[in-house]
This record gives sequence, structure tokens and C-alpha cells, in this order.
Amino acid sequence: MTIRSLDDLGAVLREFAAEREWERFHTPKNLAMALTGEAGELLAELQWLTPEESESLTPAQRERVTDELADVLNYLVRLADVLDVDLLAAADAKIARNAVRYPVETARGNAEKR
Amino acid sequence: MTIRSLDDLGAVLREFAAEREWERFHTPKNLAMALTGEAGELLAELQWLTPEESESLTPAQRERVTDELADVLNYLVRLADVLDVDLLAAADAKIARNAVRYPVETARGNAEKR
Amino acid sequence: MTIRSLDDLGAVLREFAAEREWERFHTPKNLAMALTGEAGELLAELQWLTPEESESLTPAQRERVTDELADVLNYLVRLADVLDVDLLAAADAKIARNAVRYPVETARGNAEKR
Amino acid sequence: MTIRSLDDLGAVLREFAAEREWERFHTPKNLAMALTGEAGELLAELQWLTPEESESLTPAQRERVTDELADVLNYLVRLADVLDVDLLAAADAKIARNAVRYPVETARGNAEKR
Repeated sequence: MTIRSLDDLGAVLREFAAEREWERFHTPKNLAMALTGEAGELLAELQWLTPEESESLTPAQRERVTDELADVLNYLVRLADVLDVDLLAAADAKIARNAVRYPVETARGNAEKR
Repeated sequence: MTIRSLDDLGAVLREFAAEREWERFHTPKNLAMALTGEAGELLAELQWLTPEESESLTPAQRERVTDELADVLNYLVRLADVLDVDLLAAADAKIARNAVRYPVETARGNAEKR
Repeated sequence: MTIRSLDDLGAVLREFAAEREWERFHTPKNLAMALTGEAGELLAELQWLTPEESESLTPAQRERVTDELADVLNYLVRLADVLDVDLLAAADAKIARNAVRYPVETARGNAEKR
Repeated sequence: MTIRSLDDLGAVLREFAAEREWERFHTPKNLAMALTGEAGELLAELQWLTPEESESLTPAQRERVTDELADVLNYLVRLADVLDVDLLAAADAKIARNAVRYPVETARGNAEKR
């Protein structure tokens, strides 16, 4: 199956888990841990780089970073699937709230949290 | 703009950052930190729940968890965008590698890492 | 040098970094990333275990978890050292604040955040 | 009780949890999640700063960072206590292994992982 959307990805991951009888491991709690563990591996790839170096990755670094991004996405999509959360709708709603929280005029050039 | 795909989401987040002149903050290094910070907030929502409780969230818990999933997705998509990484292709490639690493026969009911 | 205290540990790690000329990598930002990366490895060790299983680790699991705890402590102490933060004093102050935030009577048996 | 050592801190945190009947929440799995959640809050404080800015925190930033370091330490010590792990001994053993893994001559000025 060619994966063309988050829905496709969710379906593929659901089948991957089912075939291996991994559903009992895939509680939201456990998947949140797995997701964060992969985010930690992403950090490890970038931790000693300057911000500028992180913008000009070597091919080997880029491949490892891409691999970690894939791991994060896969656990994120699997987690949303077991919770029956629509990720794109949630992202859309969050952006709408952030647009109110960080109006263009006051947020310009300033990344401070509110 | 209605967000119907990861590409749409990437474009919306790109414009959101550009309007606020946040591009200089959005290095891969910084975005990886932000992504992991949001993953940490997700953990905090689930840390004292049993795995079973995490499968039966209250409406308030579910809303907070959904919000954190949105934050993780938004930083993940923004990070992939600045790196020009195709997330779905990366996820697909990773699943193919995992299918080799965890053959159905030997992985059944066993989540141990290899 | 036998390490008998956090101060000893800070001094040993400072010398370890100095000998290897790693000071320029050891900014607070970078060390916070390294610390969290190690916390992520700790999560990975425990992610598929039930809470009960995490209380009865096998010797091999226990050794890996101990190793990750050491990594977290080392980066935490190194980070506190470069920031000149007194960790025990900070922990003490935080416990005093938490004692007010979570009075015994109302917090009993209830881990909800306030 | 004045906290003068990690052992003191472990004892204080043990009593803090016991008074509130929080022991059943304090499984290694849950505490690892709490620790990483606090590490994520630490990241959030530093994510938009340059490495240089992270070395010259404002008093307000420094206070927040110190607070997060305290949270990480408290969960780390609590986790080591429930696992009956000697943190300083583990850190010492890890440094000895790292001294072999990163010999001064070859590691000088080079933070690459081995």
C-alpha cells in the first residue's frame, strides 16, 4: 500500500501492530513514552551542533535525522489512531488558537511564550 | 485555508512563522527542542495514569492530550519543512525497514527492541 | 578521585570536559538537550513494561536503567556546574514550595497537578 | 531537615510521598515519565535562545531554569530511591567507562558519539 496521507499511515501502522499482536503494548501511555524516546534520539543527533550547523546537515546527519523524524511521526500517528484523534483537525484548531495568542503585530521577531 | 494534508499544514505553518518573523528561531536544533518539550507535556498528562486509564481518558484529559498531539505534530511538520524532508516518504521507508527487523513470526506478542 | 558528593561529581565532570576541550560544546542549551536525550533513553527501557514490571526489573534491565540514570545525573550535574546552580539548595527550595502546593490533607492519594 | 546529600534528599522525598500516599503512583515507569516531562520544561526555557544566550541568562530565566533543574533532580533521586540504585556509584562507574570510550587524545575538541 502506498502511503499518501496520515489516514493511510494510520491504517498501515494499525495493521503492522495487529499482525505482531502488539496492540496490548500500544496503550496511549506507552506510545507517548515511545514517541518521546524517539524525540530524545532526534535531540541526540543535534545536541552538539550549533543552530547554524543544524541548518547544514551532512548527508549522514540528514539521514539519521530523517529517520528519527519518521519514528516520531509513526508513534504520533499510532497514538492518535488508538485515541481516535484527528491530527490534522487538532493541528488546525491549535493554529487558530495560536493566531489569537500570538498576534502578528506583537509577536513579530519575538518568540517569548505567552 | 483548510488543512487537508501534511503539505497544507507545512505551508500554513511556514506562513505563520514568516508573518511573525520567527524564521530565525526556527532552526532544526531549536525546533527539535520545541518538539520534545511538547512531547514532555504529553507525558505529563499521562504520567500518573495506569495504562488502562490512559485508554479511557475523561473528556478534559482527552482535550489536553489532543492539544499536545497537535503541538507535537505542528513542530514536527515545521521541522520537516525547514529541512525539506518528506515525512510520509520517511515514515514509509522506516516501516519497510521495521518489517525486516521485526518479522511477524518472531515479533508476535513480543515488543523487545532489536 | 572517589566521588562522595554532588560537588565531587561536578568537579570530576568539569575536569573530564576540560581535558577533552569539550567546554565549547557544554553550553546550557546543549547540555539540556543531552540530558533530555538520556531521559529519552530511560523511557525507552521502560516503555513497553507495565508499571508493575517496572518495579521488578530483570538484572539486565536494571543494569541498563541504572546506566541511563547515571547519564541523566551526569548531564544534570554538568549543567548545574556551568550555570553555577546549587542543585541541593534548589531541590530543597522546590520541596518547600511543593509542601505548600500539595498540603498533606488535600493531596492524600491524589496525584493531580495543581 | 537540612538536605546535605543525595541520601538526605532521597529520604525527604520518600517521606513527602509517604505522607501523601503517593507511593502507588511512584512506579519506576511513572517516575521516568515525570522526570522526562520536567526535562522537557527545561528545554522549553532554552529552546529559542542561542547557545550564547543560554550562557547569560537573565535573572528571571535563571530562576525558571534552576526550578526545572530541581524538578529533574527530585524525580531522578526519587526514581533511584524506589529502584534502590546508588546514583553516585552509578555516575562514577559511567565516567570510568566514558574515559575508556573517549580517550583524551582522540576526543580532544570532538564531541562525536562513539
